[in-house]
Amino acid sequence: MSHLYKHLRIHQVFGANTDVGKTIITTALIRASLLNNNRVFYLKPVSTGAPQDADDEHIKRYAGPQKHLLDAHCLFRYGDPVSPHLAVKMASEKQGGEVAPMPSDETFVNSVAEHIRKRAKVMNMPAHMYVETAGGVHSPTLSGTTQLDSYRPLFLPTILIGDSKLGGISSTISSFESLSLRGYIVDAILLFRDEYYRNFEYLTQYFSERGIHVSALDPPPPRIDDHAENFANTEKYYSNLVPDSHRGNIFNAVEHLDKCHTQRIQELDSMPRRTLDAIWWPFVQHGSVKSEKDVTVIDSAWSDFFSIYDTSSGKTSQPTSLLQPQLDGSASWWTQAVGHSHPTLALAAANAAGRYGHVMFPQATHLPALKLAERLLQGPGKGWASRAFFSDNGSTGMEVALKMALRSFIISSGLELTSPEKQSLGVIGLKGSYHGDTIGAMDACEEGVYTCEWHKAKGYWFEPPTVSLRRGQVAVSLPPALTGDQHQAVEIFENLAHVYDVEQRMKSPLAGHYRQYLEKNIRHLQEDNSRKLAALVLEPIVMGAGGMIFVDPLFQRIMVDVVRDPTLFPAALPVIYDEVFVGLYRLGFESAGPLLGVNPDISVNAKILTGGVLPLAVTMTSDRIFQAFKSDNKIDALLHGHSYTAHAVGCQVANATLDMIDGLTKSDQWVTANRKWAPTGAHSKVWSFWDPDFLTSISRLDIVDEAMALGTVLAIKFKVNDAGYASHSAQALLQTMRSPQDDGSTSSAPGGGPFGVHYRTLGNVAYFMTSLNTSRATIETLEDRLWSIISNARL
Amino acid sequence: MSHLYKHLRIHQVFGANTDVGKTIITTALIRASLLNNNRVFYLKPVSTGAPQDADDEHIKRYAGPQKHLLDAHCLFRYGDPVSPHLAVKMASEKQGGEVAPMPSDETFVNSVAEHIRKRAKVMNMPAHMYVETAGGVHSPTLSGTTQLDSYRPLFLPTILIGDSKLGGISSTISSFESLSLRGYIVDAILLFRDEYYRNFEYLTQYFSERGIHVSALDPPPPRIDDHAENFANTEKYYSNLVPDSHRGNIFNAVEHLDKCHTQRIQELDSMPRRTLDAIWWPFVQHGSVKSEKDVTVIDSAWSDFFSIYDTSSGKTSQPTSLLQPQLDGSASWWTQAVGHSHPTLALAAANAAGRYGHVMFPQATHLPALKLAERLLQGPGKGWASRAFFSDNGSTGMEVALKMALRSFIISSGLELTSPEKQSLGVIGLKGSYHGDTIGAMDACEEGVYTCEWHKAKGYWFEPPTVSLRRGQVAVSLPPALTGDQHQAVEIFENLAHVYDVEQRMKSPLAGHYRQYLEKNIRHLQEDNSRKLAALVLEPIVMGAGGMIFVDPLFQRIMVDVVRDPTLFPAALPVIYDEVFVGLYRLGFESAGPLLGVNPDISVNAKILTGGVLPLAVTMTSDRIFQAFKSDNKIDALLHGHSYTAHAVGCQVANATLDMIDGLTKSDQWVTANRKWAPTGAHSKVWSFWDPDFLTSISRLDIVDEAMALGTVLAIKFKVNDAGYASHSAQALLQTMRSPQDDGSTSSAPGGGPFGVHYRTLGNVAYFMTSLNTSRATIETLEDRLWSIISNARL
Repeated sequence: MSHLYKHLRIHQVFGANTDVGKTIITTALIRASLLNNNRVFYLKPVSTGAPQDADDEHIKRYAGPQKHLLDAHCLFRYGDPVSPHLAVKMASEKQGGEVAPMPSDETFVNSVAEHIRKRAKVMNMPAHMYVETAGGVHSPTLSGTTQLDSYRPLFLPTILIGDSKLGGISSTISSFESLSLRGYIVDAILLFRDEYYRNFEYLTQYFSERGIHVSALDPPPPRIDDHAENFANTEKYYSNLVPDSHRGNIFNAVEHLDKCHTQRIQELDSMPRRTLDAIWWPFVQHGSVKSEKDVTVIDSAWSDFFSIYDTSSGKTSQPTSLLQPQLDGSASWWTQAVGHSHPTLALAAANAAGRYGHVMFPQATHLPALKLAERLLQGPGKGWASRAFFSDNGSTGMEVALKMALRSFIISSGLELTSPEKQSLGVIGLKGSYHGDTIGAMDACEEGVYTCEWHKAKGYWFEPPTVSLRRGQVAVSLPPALTGDQHQAVEIFENLAHVYDVEQRMKSPLAGHYRQYLEKNIRHLQEDNSRKLAALVLEPIVMGAGGMIFVDPLFQRIMVDVVRDPTLFPAALPVIYDEVFVGLYRLGFESAGPLLGVNPDISVNAKILTGGVLPLAVTMTSDRIFQAFKSDNKIDALLHGHSYTAHAVGCQVANATLDMIDGLTKSDQWVTANRKWAPTGAHSKVWSFWDPDFLTSISRLDIVDEAMALGTVLAIKFKVNDAGYASHSAQALLQTMRSPQDDGSTSSAPGGGPFGVHYRTLGNVAYFMTSLNTSRATIETLEDRLWSIISNARL
Repeated sequence: MSHLYKHLRIHQVFGANTDVGKTIITTALIRASLLNNNRVFYLKPVSTGAPQDADDEHIKRYAGPQKHLLDAHCLFRYGDPVSPHLAVKMASEKQGGEVAPMPSDETFVNSVAEHIRKRAKVMNMPAHMYVETAGGVHSPTLSGTTQLDSYRPLFLPTILIGDSKLGGISSTISSFESLSLRGYIVDAILLFRDEYYRNFEYLTQYFSERGIHVSALDPPPPRIDDHAENFANTEKYYSNLVPDSHRGNIFNAVEHLDKCHTQRIQELDSMPRRTLDAIWWPFVQHGSVKSEKDVTVIDSAWSDFFSIYDTSSGKTSQPTSLLQPQLDGSASWWTQAVGHSHPTLALAAANAAGRYGHVMFPQATHLPALKLAERLLQGPGKGWASRAFFSDNGSTGMEVALKMALRSFIISSGLELTSPEKQSLGVIGLKGSYHGDTIGAMDACEEGVYTCEWHKAKGYWFEPPTVSLRRGQVAVSLPPALTGDQHQAVEIFENLAHVYDVEQRMKSPLAGHYRQYLEKNIRHLQEDNSRKLAALVLEPIVMGAGGMIFVDPLFQRIMVDVVRDPTLFPAALPVIYDEVFVGLYRLGFESAGPLLGVNPDISVNAKILTGGVLPLAVTMTSDRIFQAFKSDNKIDALLHGHSYTAHAVGCQVANATLDMIDGLTKSDQWVTANRKWAPTGAHSKVWSFWDPDFLTSISRLDIVDEAMALGTVLAIKFKVNDAGYASHSAQALLQTMRSPQDDGSTSSAPGGGPFGVHYRTLGNVAYFMTSLNTSRATIETLEDRLWSIISNARL
């Protein structure tokens, strides 16, 4: 991940094109850095072309009077003056046609990171490092990935060498935009002063409006054939450009880069204090935030990792990077699908922002929203949904779902209700439900920690039987209410596949028991006239915020069957699946309908929908629900909307995300890689990213009450006295995971090295969650880390 | 705006750099188009360099056997072979040093549009048009604006000519990204087949993964000095590349472009039907949507305009564009700040998406969120706010505000309340209030059209005195409740400045009357023990969704004073300003506090905050409110949050928006231009974009009940019998505005020509709203259009 050292200022040099003077300007920068009494490290990760023409040789030759303070290196060198991805191929062809193994992106970026790390360690005076790329910003590296994407894990601040030739205004601005859309920090743009095309004039103005420093430098003399004369001319050029008097644009540029470096560290350093002074965090008791150390400063993120500012690391005798990798172990509140900062999603966001901005939606349409609606109706809505309604987040999506359900229930049951009767319509649900924090969504849940003054629980919530591994065994645990006495009962299964084979289990005695229990209790509720039941509201399979409760799917299936049983409900209750957390492969399946064997009337998707970039929710409904709102009177319409309803940026990002998820889940490789780890047998409808042996072993530990994994999710519940939401027990237990640990892990952060883990807990439950494309190695490292901590812990 | 004709396929040709073969490949395309029996129009809007070398000359020379079907033009021609913005300067310098008037972006783009329009009219057979740009994608046009931005209003589908030279992979991808981030449709990438660098191989693979067609063509022969031989060689090259047999890559490319054109029209044509089949719109009675004609298809948007697919226009004998401009007359539900598709905002969105994606927020921080919090605290929160809490939209922002207010009221009043007592805590507000559609926000409003089954009005709402122009006079109208009898009373003011000079009016008899009235009624409410009052909730100055009700600011000021009067409320009630609609200069002021002379304890901003791109809301609070939630117990915290809380993309876009708003509102030009139109005198704290004479005249019309304008907002209330929310009276009256009218208006849409107006109504109220940078000419056109319709209308 990102490298940042107090006394070593590093910049990566990108070119707006090939042949724009990257090496010459870098030489000038180095010469100035050296004259300012800095040790200078120069790195050319890849060089193609004749060795004597290589950039590192040029740099060494013209480094000036202080050249003894220069350390110049090249990591990968190829003879043909072509793009690196071709040079690798050509080199192997010359060696008899056999293709030599091509360094992977990971190997490549790790070797650059390793080089930086070593230099940082031997550093004994203020130092500058310049990492010079090859060709233009998007020129491919060895593997064929373009440089901007290859180097992105390192997130080094950049210098862009502008193009001073005809057409160079365009290539400079485009290159800047490509850098920007990958989040790169561009500290300066440097280019030659060409008096005819005068690009520097235009670009200075253009970028000053965008807050970017531009410097123009005199161009080099023409190259001539006579070596000695060429050398003399060039040396003279450099000594004019970088005079001993420490004056001129190049020194201003070096000073500016120094300032950017200092300011970046100062800013990171100030962020905890400023945050504690200005921000009110969600779900955080600010009274428990004791110091700046309790603030996680996220400088950037990439793939599954945050880059975290770590104030402690800079203070050790062995300088390590001020920025450290931290695995985003809860997929940023369950939102990430393909990892952070994916360029495809950034470009999708930009494209929609550039084509539409937000365009208002009532009686209007635009492609991103229409396509998203259609693909969701053909995806999780397939076979039952006819309409998509857009809103901004899971909570608003659920408010919409509830409004739809209540109204359609009234219409289909032919009731004439007074306002107080409408207000007291109730839902059936499960204890532990959570549907978001707006008060309407809250009212579909029991009173609990999340609820607030105006909350009024409107409904009845059954305590559910749950699924987990307990002491190595797959168990369905029945709460006392279901056993009929004061004790929990446990039914053991051979494996999870059996538990989730709902159709098979419909014939089991337990199914009969569930049905009987639900029918009896629901009849009681109906006899009690205080609250008319109007909808069934479920988080299928897992109740997330309630504590990662894996509900027995059979119980949920039978709940749906019961509320659709005409002997109990002459007008079937609308069934809402809140799939905000569970849907779109978070738990390994697109939607829970096929798993439960019954589809809802209304469902809500959000979170992973937009690939972990920005908020958007979609409520899907059957046609029956939609028709209930149709009439000739505007007042009968669903009068709900948000200003940014169906915002094009969110819809476009969602479409791009669903494209990527499709590609991923339909690839044999992905299915094989993950099904291998299915805890549930090869033909199961469910599977998990987590090793079943690990899961079984963890569940056998004394301090573990139960453990469970499905799809990308792992949950571990500890045996503690203090188990409520306010408990910090799980958090305290895992505290050490936050810091990187050099424990010989099988996986490293991008750029190599150990990483910390950012995790979330709910009372005595710790849970972990990956993206859909997280590597096996990362998951295994996390498993090893967890095993090592938990198996050694005593509560 | 965008041009699209059924029988005229238009493409704009951009180059990945200068000298990549744009003209040669365009010539080949033209030759193939001609051989396919199409009439072909070629347009080079700007040409620099010697006339005999000009691209249009080359095209004419080598157009092949069907060249009689070619029409080639250049609009602006300059002699120096440099970037157009320099060529203009050089040309005028040669003419004696005087700078010739430089065509503005508007003139430039209008002349291109006019050229297209003329060609479309004379078209009598299938035709293709190629518009060839100069240099690279971002090369400046005459005014200095880069091509991508200059041409963007026309939104022509594009062909990108890739770069086949060393470095060309990079410049081609970067150019593509710059096109993408302005929303451009890239139908194809064409480039030369260079067998050494083999860029075409790489790019074909790269772009096929992104769904973009790439074709490689043989490169041209080297240019030689002998003219005749050169001509013969070149002609031979073209006849090989574009053989009479209609075979080869170039014909595939032309077919592909034809297909893209056909598919685009088919897709636009299918969108109304598909939308009616898949979408459930917000606030729309689908029973009233009778046909596909009732669906507005938005193909793209730019500045203040949508580009609308108009099925009728293609069917007239005079072909006009299938896409027509429509002014976004309600700023897309009051969200737009600087117009649609602003490249600065698109780049800001992309930059944050590429640096962070979304990173989870509790106990964490990142620069975009921190900076936004700080600048809001120093902007609308200045002098009173200490904390910013993020959520996703105005409605969730208000739920947060209410949760904050209720809890802090309980704490500060030292009450011990039961759950039912907490549930029945009430707010004081105004009739006509609206705070969003989630049920908690709804509960702070009276029962009304927007409310739903679970809504329960929790509070008391006063009918407010209102401000408007009635029959040409500035009037404050007092409702019967305030006059004490059955009739409305009206107080006339000299001008609006006096009405909004709240401090001055505090000494007026009316102030005393308001205070007396409020104190008396609030005492009554306090004596009635059914609902304890716990907060004051106001939309300051204007209640938007309630019907654009301009409330007498003096009344709101005194409401605040009263709930802070310790003789009435020993613990002052928290005051919430819902500034979702009114704040951040929508009404001409950053926030309402300074205007009312009192600050709130809690405020909410959203809508314009993110510049009309994507949803985000910020709830700001005073330190007193924040402290009420601090303790050692997690349960006491504000346990509210959304997955995407403080998403980096929204925060970054908001920061960029606020930067632009700062720049705009602090510029003398903006202040002068708009203050000139102040209805309220030079020293007033309020002003408006709308002409006071227009406003006065409109208010005098028989069918107008009242009219009012402030900041960017204009509202006109018609006298009708049927005035409720379900009424379509205002909508029916203004129906003709939707279509473009060639009425000799002072303003035209970008690209010239008349435009329709997309407007919103609320029952018998029509309202209009601009961005903060909408041109005076556009506003004047809208005023003229409104005057012409309303002054001639009879209800």
